[in-house]
Amino acid sequence: MKPLAISMGEPAGIGPDILLSLYARRLELGLPAFVVFGHTGFLAERAKRLGLDIAVEAVRPADAGAVFARALPVVDIAGMVPDQPGRPEPASARVVLAAIEEAVASVKAGESRALVTAPIHKGALYHAGFGHPGHTEFLAALCAVGGIEPLPVMMLAHEELRTVPLTIHVPIKDVPGLISKELIVETLRVMARDLQSRFGIAAPRIAVAGLNPHAGEGGAIGREEIEIIIPALEQARAEGIAAIGPLPGDTLFFPKHWRQYDAVLAMYHDQALIPIKTVAFDAGVNVTLGLPIVRTSPDHGTAFDLAGTGKASTSSFLAAIAMADKMTTRTA
Amino acid sequence: MKPLAISMGEPAGIGPDILLSLYARRLELGLPAFVVFGHTGFLAERAKRLGLDIAVEAVRPADAGAVFARALPVVDIAGMVPDQPGRPEPASARVVLAAIEEAVASVKAGESRALVTAPIHKGALYHAGFGHPGHTEFLAALCAVGGIEPLPVMMLAHEELRTVPLTIHVPIKDVPGLISKELIVETLRVMARDLQSRFGIAAPRIAVAGLNPHAGEGGAIGREEIEIIIPALEQARAEGIAAIGPLPGDTLFFPKHWRQYDAVLAMYHDQALIPIKTVAFDAGVNVTLGLPIVRTSPDHGTAFDLAGTGKASTSSFLAAIAMADKMTTRTA
Repeated sequence: MKPLAISMGEPAGIGPDILLSLYARRLELGLPAFVVFGHTGFLAERAKRLGLDIAVEAVRPADAGAVFARALPVVDIAGMVPDQPGRPEPASARVVLAAIEEAVASVKAGESRALVTAPIHKGALYHAGFGHPGHTEFLAALCAVGGIEPLPVMMLAHEELRTVPLTIHVPIKDVPGLISKELIVETLRVMARDLQSRFGIAAPRIAVAGLNPHAGEGGAIGREEIEIIIPALEQARAEGIAAIGPLPGDTLFFPKHWRQYDAVLAMYHDQALIPIKTVAFDAGVNVTLGLPIVRTSPDHGTAFDLAGTGKASTSSFLAAIAMADKMTTRTA
Repeated sequence: MKPLAISMGEPAGIGPDILLSLYARRLELGLPAFVVFGHTGFLAERAKRLGLDIAVEAVRPADAGAVFARALPVVDIAGMVPDQPGRPEPASARVVLAAIEEAVASVKAGESRALVTAPIHKGALYHAGFGHPGHTEFLAALCAVGGIEPLPVMMLAHEELRTVPLTIHVPIKDVPGLISKELIVETLRVMARDLQSRFGIAAPRIAVAGLNPHAGEGGAIGREEIEIIIPALEQARAEGIAAIGPLPGDTLFFPKHWRQYDAVLAMYHDQALIPIKTVAFDAGVNVTLGLPIVRTSPDHGTAFDLAGTGKASTSSFLAAIAMADKMTTRTA
């Protein structure tokens, strides 16, 4: 089976620590073969700093599977990457971005079966010309066909609870203005399609949360449900998508309620992320739907204060690898 | 020990069903004595409809303790209350409101030690002149002294997780405009004082959530944290209140994070209620802080579709009784 591709992420953060530490425990954890896109010398340095007795070996993706048992296979990205835990270095930006680009290309070319990304730090990338709002939008741009980018849809997933925030990193005051019938319908289309093709759910049922308390209580507490969300659900259902709602954001997350659905479309960031964090602890996974490739990532950032210490939790990264593996085992 | 006072709530809803059903299981559940403020004839009718073999006896609050072992003690409120599960009857409104008024008076007079309210249905009360935004505001008005009403603070509580929404039943688009330094500081004062006096926590630690994703990420995703929330927390801390934040709404609700605090002040309805519902299932309790009396209520509404069937879950009402009992055992 082809390897998973892992992009190294921000070298000053905990991403490299975690992937090295997981590699060291590959037998115990029963990990599938993966190949890291990053800087070989830096990764070897960081492994030494963490006291991990592992070899690092530059490979082509096709050889990763054979190498994985004896050494961490790395597709080497040339450049300067000093080993400075906690101190992001603008000079590393080129390698960080090229690692993502080459990892995406490898999955698109069919050499690797899915992409798992370690966290990046946008601040360290801006001077290198990084102009995307975030990691996910960068991936969408790399997946453009004929100049047209797919709509990437961020899903937080943990075993049977899966939530999608319709709007993401925007102030709450801007959320009502960003909710549109078109965005809801297109997001539901992506969710329904990928729940079928990537998660193997034949007839996905998607719950849709209201924006306002009690889903607006029939217009008494806000009108967006009546004016935007309900018409969007009618459109989606007319297209054959089982979209149920709008449901009150709080009662929807009674476990006995959300367990009736395959995924939940929430209207904003905290409405989607709070239930995942309470339910999944630190084992939630960020899955990007809507792309031509499978992409997962851990549900945490670079955590500069923990980098180089070996104390970062590996749970979410491990869950991201397991989910990418599961999502591609059936088709690989 | 003095009894707990329970107001009967909406007769067409599940409140009467649940309190009758709990009374029938009083021995098995080890319930403390309580007295219901409501309509004796209606309650006897509803008990019969539910097939519960219990006696209902009109009492004065002082006699409730002695009666509780043999019959459900009821402070009878005269009026018309037909037994029509699921069909609210405007004519019942007078009894519903008087039951609450007399129950509050009984607790204020020291005849009963705390108030547990069954859910009401505002729609059925409007024509009787009910002009308050909700149950809690009505209670605050009944607790006014010299025409000045206390600020009631709604807390959702479940064992160690307790959350307070700063704003409640308002559209999301109005939330940013309703967040003020004064409201945050006064709410924190009420929380700190009642966590000490009602919950016996000597030095309460209160986490405060940000409004925006990632608590605004230093101003990159909204300015309310910088302009309003942080100055409010500085003021509260200057008054000796251990208020920590603003913390990102999502990561705050990792169990390992919220367990470090005695309560969480959230900025809006779903931010406070989603974590309680995911964690507490149906055993969350609504506690009103800031009043001169202890008041709890179940965390559900009238559920007309279940009324009269005996199928309503008693978990939250039972938890509300247990919490009112615990909050007043130390002082009663």
